[in-house]
Amino acid sequence: MADLKARSAALMDTPEEAEAQFYESMRDADLERMMAIWSDDEDIVCVHPGGGRLVGPRAVRAAFEAIFSTGSIAVEPEHVRRVQTMGTCVSSVLERVDMVTSEGTRRGWIVATNVYVKSAQGWRLVAHHASPGLIDEPADADEAPAVLH
Amino acid sequence: MADLKARSAALMDTPEEAEAQFYESMRDADLERMMAIWSDDEDIVCVHPGGGRLVGPRAVRAAFEAIFSTGSIAVEPEHVRRVQTMGTCVSSVLERVDMVTSEGTRRGWIVATNVYVKSAQGWRLVAHHASPGLIDEPADADEAPAVLH
Repeated sequence: MADLKARSAALMDTPEEAEAQFYESMRDADLERMMAIWSDDEDIVCVHPGGGRLVGPRAVRAAFEAIFSTGSIAVEPEHVRRVQTMGTCVSSVLERVDMVTSEGTRRGWIVATNVYVKSAQGWRLVAHHASPGLIDEPADADEAPAVLH
Repeated sequence: MADLKARSAALMDTPEEAEAQFYESMRDADLERMMAIWSDDEDIVCVHPGGGRLVGPRAVRAAFEAIFSTGSIAVEPEHVRRVQTMGTCVSSVLERVDMVTSEGTRRGWIVATNVYVKSAQGWRLVAHHASPGLIDEPADADEAPAVLH
């Protein structure tokens, strides 16, 4: 079953499909499906919130394996903004994460930049950079009024 | 002079030139030169260390204006890893920042992901995501020994 998922992941036709599968893999704590989304390039990079930089598939896999060993992650991508060219998609996402604590479920936000590149194997992830966002649901800073001076 | 710089910035032939100018602009606190590197796309995104997401040229400019109003930044990009396709370059950088404090100069590290896209106006920045790194100079996690099991 894991192999079947991994194979289907390798044929993603759009960056939107790749991104959906990225977050599904986190919700399912499915390591094989997660790694099938990533490019095989030795220079792929992954930064988890509050963490250092991971470079290359081996390091990226080891970190997700450690994360998934503690369980799945209740994460939903929201407020997506994309810059897309013919072969690349830069997706900026506010990740809504629900964490179960001793005081009940708490909601947090993470800011993530995901970069997908089109390859012969479909759209693949080459960079995921995530950092802690705001406690409350954030408004994009582009909605601030213009100041003319 | 600022106009001259801005015009020359608009003709960058390589992502390496664009990145060099990005960090020079920070060291010079040169807002016009900085903004000349960015794409005009309304979906450009910028995340400063510990900050929320800024979307669009107006919000990005306002934040750099606020930063530069307090002075320049002694920053050097190091440990650069790049994934490059025909029209896009994803550059992962460890930014070495020297900060002058009451206890002398302190060195810090910031992890940054910079994405450049080739356009008719040369290579332009579409995303800059930076988050606090480690206190000591970091080793890349790709140098960990392989565990076969």
